[in-house]
Amino acid sequence: MSVPNVWPAIDGIAYGGDYTPEQWPREVWHEDIRLMREAGVNLLSIGIFTWALLEIDEGEFDFAWLDELIELLHTNGIAVDLGTPTAAPPAWFYARYPDARVVTADGVALGTGSRGMASPSAPEYRAATVRVATELARRYGSHPAVVLWHVHNEYGAPIAADYSPHAVRAFREWLQQRYDSLDALNTAWGTAFWGQQYRNWEHIDVPRTAASTINPAQQLDFARFTDYQLRACFIAERDAIRAHAEQPITTNFMANQIGVADLWAWAEEVDIVSDDHYLDAADPEAEIGLAIAADLTRSVARGRPWILMEHSTSAVNWQSRNIAKRPGEMQRNSLAHVARGADAVMFFQWRASRSGAEKFHSAMVPHAGTESRGWREVVDLGATLKRISEIRGSVVKADVAMLWDFESFWAEELEWRPSVDIDHIERTRAFYEQLWRDGITVDFALPSHDLSRYRLVVVPAQYLLRAEDAANLTRYVENGGTLVVSYFSAIVDENDAVHSGGFVSVLRDVLGVRVQEFLPLRKGHRAGITWGDPTLTDTDSDIWQEDLVVGEAEIVASFAEGPAAGGAAVTRNVRGLGAAWYVGTRLDSVGLKRLMHASYADAGISAVKTDGLEVVSRRRGAEHFTVAINHRDRPGVLDLHGQDLISGERFAGETEISAGAVVVVRGLVVDSD
Amino acid sequence: MSVPNVWPAIDGIAYGGDYTPEQWPREVWHEDIRLMREAGVNLLSIGIFTWALLEIDEGEFDFAWLDELIELLHTNGIAVDLGTPTAAPPAWFYARYPDARVVTADGVALGTGSRGMASPSAPEYRAATVRVATELARRYGSHPAVVLWHVHNEYGAPIAADYSPHAVRAFREWLQQRYDSLDALNTAWGTAFWGQQYRNWEHIDVPRTAASTINPAQQLDFARFTDYQLRACFIAERDAIRAHAEQPITTNFMANQIGVADLWAWAEEVDIVSDDHYLDAADPEAEIGLAIAADLTRSVARGRPWILMEHSTSAVNWQSRNIAKRPGEMQRNSLAHVARGADAVMFFQWRASRSGAEKFHSAMVPHAGTESRGWREVVDLGATLKRISEIRGSVVKADVAMLWDFESFWAEELEWRPSVDIDHIERTRAFYEQLWRDGITVDFALPSHDLSRYRLVVVPAQYLLRAEDAANLTRYVENGGTLVVSYFSAIVDENDAVHSGGFVSVLRDVLGVRVQEFLPLRKGHRAGITWGDPTLTDTDSDIWQEDLVVGEAEIVASFAEGPAAGGAAVTRNVRGLGAAWYVGTRLDSVGLKRLMHASYADAGISAVKTDGLEVVSRRRGAEHFTVAINHRDRPGVLDLHGQDLISGERFAGETEISAGAVVVVRGLVVDSD
Amino acid sequence: MSVPNVWPAIDGIAYGGDYTPEQWPREVWHEDIRLMREAGVNLLSIGIFTWALLEIDEGEFDFAWLDELIELLHTNGIAVDLGTPTAAPPAWFYARYPDARVVTADGVALGTGSRGMASPSAPEYRAATVRVATELARRYGSHPAVVLWHVHNEYGAPIAADYSPHAVRAFREWLQQRYDSLDALNTAWGTAFWGQQYRNWEHIDVPRTAASTINPAQQLDFARFTDYQLRACFIAERDAIRAHAEQPITTNFMANQIGVADLWAWAEEVDIVSDDHYLDAADPEAEIGLAIAADLTRSVARGRPWILMEHSTSAVNWQSRNIAKRPGEMQRNSLAHVARGADAVMFFQWRASRSGAEKFHSAMVPHAGTESRGWREVVDLGATLKRISEIRGSVVKADVAMLWDFESFWAEELEWRPSVDIDHIERTRAFYEQLWRDGITVDFALPSHDLSRYRLVVVPAQYLLRAEDAANLTRYVENGGTLVVSYFSAIVDENDAVHSGGFVSVLRDVLGVRVQEFLPLRKGHRAGITWGDPTLTDTDSDIWQEDLVVGEAEIVASFAEGPAAGGAAVTRNVRGLGAAWYVGTRLDSVGLKRLMHASYADAGISAVKTDGLEVVSRRRGAEHFTVAINHRDRPGVLDLHGQDLISGERFAGETEISAGAVVVVRGLVVDSD
Repeated sequence: MSVPNVWPAIDGIAYGGDYTPEQWPREVWHEDIRLMREAGVNLLSIGIFTWALLEIDEGEFDFAWLDELIELLHTNGIAVDLGTPTAAPPAWFYARYPDARVVTADGVALGTGSRGMASPSAPEYRAATVRVATELARRYGSHPAVVLWHVHNEYGAPIAADYSPHAVRAFREWLQQRYDSLDALNTAWGTAFWGQQYRNWEHIDVPRTAASTINPAQQLDFARFTDYQLRACFIAERDAIRAHAEQPITTNFMANQIGVADLWAWAEEVDIVSDDHYLDAADPEAEIGLAIAADLTRSVARGRPWILMEHSTSAVNWQSRNIAKRPGEMQRNSLAHVARGADAVMFFQWRASRSGAEKFHSAMVPHAGTESRGWREVVDLGATLKRISEIRGSVVKADVAMLWDFESFWAEELEWRPSVDIDHIERTRAFYEQLWRDGITVDFALPSHDLSRYRLVVVPAQYLLRAEDAANLTRYVENGGTLVVSYFSAIVDENDAVHSGGFVSVLRDVLGVRVQEFLPLRKGHRAGITWGDPTLTDTDSDIWQEDLVVGEAEIVASFAEGPAAGGAAVTRNVRGLGAAWYVGTRLDSVGLKRLMHASYADAGISAVKTDGLEVVSRRRGAEHFTVAINHRDRPGVLDLHGQDLISGERFAGETEISAGAVVVVRGLVVDSD
Repeated sequence: MSVPNVWPAIDGIAYGGDYTPEQWPREVWHEDIRLMREAGVNLLSIGIFTWALLEIDEGEFDFAWLDELIELLHTNGIAVDLGTPTAAPPAWFYARYPDARVVTADGVALGTGSRGMASPSAPEYRAATVRVATELARRYGSHPAVVLWHVHNEYGAPIAADYSPHAVRAFREWLQQRYDSLDALNTAWGTAFWGQQYRNWEHIDVPRTAASTINPAQQLDFARFTDYQLRACFIAERDAIRAHAEQPITTNFMANQIGVADLWAWAEEVDIVSDDHYLDAADPEAEIGLAIAADLTRSVARGRPWILMEHSTSAVNWQSRNIAKRPGEMQRNSLAHVARGADAVMFFQWRASRSGAEKFHSAMVPHAGTESRGWREVVDLGATLKRISEIRGSVVKADVAMLWDFESFWAEELEWRPSVDIDHIERTRAFYEQLWRDGITVDFALPSHDLSRYRLVVVPAQYLLRAEDAANLTRYVENGGTLVVSYFSAIVDENDAVHSGGFVSVLRDVLGVRVQEFLPLRKGHRAGITWGDPTLTDTDSDIWQEDLVVGEAEIVASFAEGPAAGGAAVTRNVRGLGAAWYVGTRLDSVGLKRLMHASYADAGISAVKTDGLEVVSRRRGAEHFTVAINHRDRPGVLDLHGQDLISGERFAGETEISAGAVVVVRGLVVDSD
Repeated sequence: MSVPNVWPAIDGIAYGGDYTPEQWPREVWHEDIRLMREAGVNLLSIGIFTWALLEIDEGEFDFAWLDELIELLHTNGIAVDLGTPTAAPPAWFYARYPDARVVTADGVALGTGSRGMASPSAPEYRAATVRVATELARRYGSHPAVVLWHVHNEYGAPIAADYSPHAVRAFREWLQQRYDSLDALNTAWGTAFWGQQYRNWEHIDVPRTAASTINPAQQLDFARFTDYQLRACFIAERDAIRAHAEQPITTNFMANQIGVADLWAWAEEVDIVSDDHYLDAADPEAEIGLAIAADLTRSVARGRPWILMEHSTSAVNWQSRNIAKRPGEMQRNSLAHVARGADAVMFFQWRASRSGAEKFHSAMVPHAGTESRGWREVVDLGATLKRISEIRGSVVKADVAMLWDFESFWAEELEWRPSVDIDHIERTRAFYEQLWRDGITVDFALPSHDLSRYRLVVVPAQYLLRAEDAANLTRYVENGGTLVVSYFSAIVDENDAVHSGGFVSVLRDVLGVRVQEFLPLRKGHRAGITWGDPTLTDTDSDIWQEDLVVGEAEIVASFAEGPAAGGAAVTRNVRGLGAAWYVGTRLDSVGLKRLMHASYADAGISAVKTDGLEVVSRRRGAEHFTVAINHRDRPGVLDLHGQDLISGERFAGETEISAGAVVVVRGLVVDSD
């Protein structure tokens, strides 16, 4: 079997969404085809929740309706992203294998009639998924309409952790693989604390509900195991498909929305990275969360183009208050994804479902029908994507990396940390937001990555940092890099054990400081920060202070108030050819801006005058495609050179982008990088 | 067996309460009789929690104590409302039939030592209740003291939904009855969504805790099934009693306090409607909640007099802060119920219990004994009820109907609605409150009812509206009625499926508008409303906006701010002989008053100048009995004509009602209706 | 076997902490010894969580490492407090006896991999604990290094109540012991309410999750049973040790932190009382909570010196925001405990753990090592304790008692009380805090105690008050005592049944008032209080009012607002030689101060001018040791006479104590008591 041709065989930017004709009578199918052509749809994801239709009883398959559907799409020139339906086992499966259900930490075997998967560790489930994937691949592995395989759906959603007997058995096997000996496990887990030493593999349990906190290293390993088992499910299906099919294979991630999957590892297993993204409706600047998700997706894809597999035309149905998108917002969101590397713009879903749990989710064809603003914007977007299609295949280049390590997040989220106010999501967003406002594009990275191509590396929350990865960061600075490290980083090793030299000790040399003690603040306690002039307290901080012992570093800002009053809050250390910053508190946005701009100076980069616009560039050779998006309700002015692919206009300097508008400017790269 | 004489054989308004002498020594029984006579008590509910005393082991009955008690009451001229004790199975029952316990959605079999019933679906429980009801009816079915049967207690409290194996089996049987074929069920439930198609009845489960949302149509059917099973329990007992007894049979509802029972259906099964009502202590205007409950009770009774089976003399024990009633409040509450159709005023309970879960519940004889304000007010109320006894049998007439549909509420309360701020209780209260302040009496109704006798029909929250019921509302307007419809009504059909023409489409003709998209607002977002003059933003709204496409309707008010700024917020459509209003947001109280007063003009009704008093009338032929209640701490002035039955005073025009006072004015009807 | 020599054989004040060398390699052991000598450590608690190391499989013991450790400590002159490891059964125990796990009220068998004990009712657990305790006592019962036995750890933490089948069986047995007959049980529990009569012991269940509230007397008995079973576990281990060992035996209480153990009863079973105390980090005046805990510990020890077995050098790890101690705070806390009767100052723990659930808990040797403020203060504290060692053995004398009755608290905490705002912890703290600010030392007591030696007895929250104990309080007043009783006291008897004369009736004679009805206030409702001059409303109250009928008492303050407006709020009744105060509301701090100062006048005691300092004295014969602690950040002035044992300075009158400082002044008693 040959290596797959990685990008699916479609012209231009892929445009479409999830299609569920099984919910509709045949006459609607034909109406759909007509509308798809009107909108310029060229790719549809099908089959995702159709196991009960395809395998009507164990081993008994019915492909007739799917044959018909694929032929219809093929005839009309619409390519197919064929889903395996394994996210929704049929009722007969649960009835026959009740022990294959997911069990909660409290011992509740979860019910059916919903969505969600069987236990990823149940052999019966694994076998059934391989069987159905195999049958599909056998039948459609050479079909010209099928250009992509879509395995399962959003692994880890709505549930990932499983405490069933199958999981217990599999967890023990996984631990034996990982540790080989119980001595090694006892050491890694620090079982001497609270007298938890194991002398028999069979005595180890999953971290089910207990009277108090479970051993944190055990919990961290269970998070790793949970991720591993989900990935093993994917791999089993992928390999079953590959045995009979040549098309590329993907599965839709949920970058920045579900934290249970280590996407760095997952991205190694897929042919193409794809992602689902939904705005956080409660966030009035949800476009920043979108940018994080898109940058993270591109980063795990190692910079290659990726598929936006799902987003929404307007409101979703599962948030507290499902805010609808305003006029133009769907286009702004779509092009923001494209700007950050997506070469496909897909929606959940084509046509709004009348029944079921998600009937209030927006769709390309809304409940209101085609006599609606929503539909008109869907048609417009199709046309816009055609106009900018030459952007496809170009790449995004970033000078700044920010660390994003799922393992560290899993560890940090365990119980009994110094303060409930510690929050890696909040810190990551805060640092990212400053860079976004400064028009600086960010890649995400692991601390073990080669970071030498970045001018600045930001570490907002790297609680778990292996000694060898700390050495990598140190070398990065010594070789000329600029590093910014925020508090509660570099605390523990891979087993959630405090580094033997104390907190932050593995970065002591590069940072030039030592953390003597954490000083979390009480709820609502705010404390002033003094920059340079000790009489001037002009920015604020909260949540956290530290007793910092400053070694070689210089003190840039100090605590004016609070338990660390007089002590260092922000430090800078020149090390080798580079510089390393440390910030031991949660600065307010003014302070964070001051810190970041100072670090830009060290890194030799500069903030863009964005006038509030989102600005990102993709490049192909000497050409750049600069996407500028005005999310606000007033015009913004930007320095632009080149031709807007959407309007055809040419810009040569200060350009006004009207409220809500987007431009995609093709021009020539003039700067040195 | 003859048809029962519907109203119990008692003179005057019934007065009394739950009596639990099993908690007291014999000497207290005789003290009780003396005090009952002092207070004018003429009816007592007994036996309600005495199963363990009556059936001391399975099939072994002891009636001696009950014989003695009934004789004692009979001798003293106090009538008996005889309860069946089936709300509290004895300890031996649970020990012998542990599988007959109620099981939660999480799989927890609920414990004993509390109150609450066995699984309504357990055959052993059903058989036991029929046995004990039969034995009671055999023994007391002809006893002259027994004037009423009181089956069970507050069906649905404290728990209704049951997920036990018995319930699973019964749910499947109920579904087979309802749908006949799995095809019909699959279509109704929309199982094509998320691949939930069933091919075997035995694969269908109750909606137990799952990884995500359960199919909403399945949940709605489970709510219907839960109601049905409870009612089947009642019917089984009722029929067992009727086989041996002639007295009327009732069971105490909890209108407006527990939503699990469809009281429209229940009221068809009882000989007399009775209701328990408790004030919401956190509500400083709890009298409005009382009025809703009383009007709803009268409405399900189809206007016939009803029994206030339980209320409290003062505080209850089960709320967060159990506010005591102030001097006169018990009388005001009691007469408010009478004003709205109750011909019986009963309390939980006669004498405060020293032990058990409700020892802090107030009673007619409080812990402080008869040397107390509480007792003096109980004696006064007895005398007052005697003075106004001629009101008995008169009826309440309303010009306004408000829709109240338990099925729609069940559907609306399911997960994943457009906004968590949608709340049918809040909207119903808001519209009702305006009518209450305007002195306009309200009947509640189903959308399928003949509404032609009402001048105004208000639809605060009819999320689920069948197409045929929408047609009924349309005809109502075409024939001259005035209709007011609030947002998030007419969204789905009886299977929680969005109407095929989109939101509100089944009312599109009558309302003259089309809802293009929901625009829920973020938390705390308030938006001004413009009425007529577009420069004037003088009322406010929150929670919700919509993209309304206005057809034949006229725009009465518009959104001045928010995502729908400039669009219609309130519309009015003349249709046939009538008019239909639509309001697409949550207006503040000023705006709601403006809307309602405008609709009164269409309906040809007018607000009463109540000066803050509660005013309701009952009628018998040409006579009216107008009850006016001053809930405030200052006097109020009202136009009254006739004689106050309480004080004997005659009123002929503007009359001052002192703070906290009540009058019951008998006069002659002068107006045309 | 001889009676143990009660205080452990150590010179001076004991100083040290929990030592867990099993978590460290041998080289660290030797470093530890060196540092312990530097700090003056003379006592270590060892072995507490080492069951899995000691009994490596059932019946197979390995003492080699413990032999080595004890020898090492002995050689270096450090005494041993030898723990039994039964708070943490080994993994093999749970694997072999899965039914010995604790089960929650919901039926969840709690998992392993954490801390927490097996079911206290499981025979297998009881047998195993006796076995391990016996083996330890056999081996070390005569070892000269071992000066104290430390059974188990913090009984009741992290969980106490157990609903396992073992618990059900044991609860029934306990009830049979307590009641002898089911008639007695039915009467005590008031099972006539809600028809819960039992005719078979096997029908009685533990109060597991039910549809509504469980019988409160049953719940109260279950709380008693839970306490009894934990204590029975202790007694079994204690007796096993005593059979082979002569050293005193203790177990570490958690006074004022876990309410499940009746410490009055527990203190009768230990040779020495010891206590663990942790500051409430959210409380900016956590030193007051510390004082309550220390006074309670001394009180249950009947005034004898006690061991502070655990506290923290700085932050803990298990609170929401783990606030670190500021410079000097560890010393202030330690000496506050000593001032209130502790003759031992011990920490959890010696060296911070790198792994496990409590790695962020501070320790004598912090993660930062000995180059830290923390370590320097540990060394300083050791020196200070040496300087003040003559305080050892002196005693604290109090003129004021405050009632603290665990049984009453258990009863009050049950569901369905008149208001959720009732809170015995809050009321106890409020009254205590006033006394603390007035420099008046408090003993805690039960209402059954001989109170004649106290001038003032305060009753902040004695919901459950037996009639005979009410008589004790009455006699106390009649004999000249002053009594202050707060609302919601004297409500129920030992079975949670309302006293037959009504609320507070058992104190009616001594208080001279009668409570007619409770009048809880709505959330946020504040009501003015008038003292004497009826036009003056100068203090405030909230949460609670009552309809007080005043008999012989005089009215001291009245409600100016609220439902009881015009009625009595505070009363005073002269009875025999004494006076009794009653307060029927939650006064603000100004009002409470006024009340308490008025009661001091009756009691013939006076507030000390503390200038904000904490002041307590211990005495030995004619000598006093006055400890004055300045918790504030500004100096305070105090009248002191004698020599400061810490600095050596002599004081003779007004003395300034600098911010954060402590003095321990030895002088001669001059006053009459």
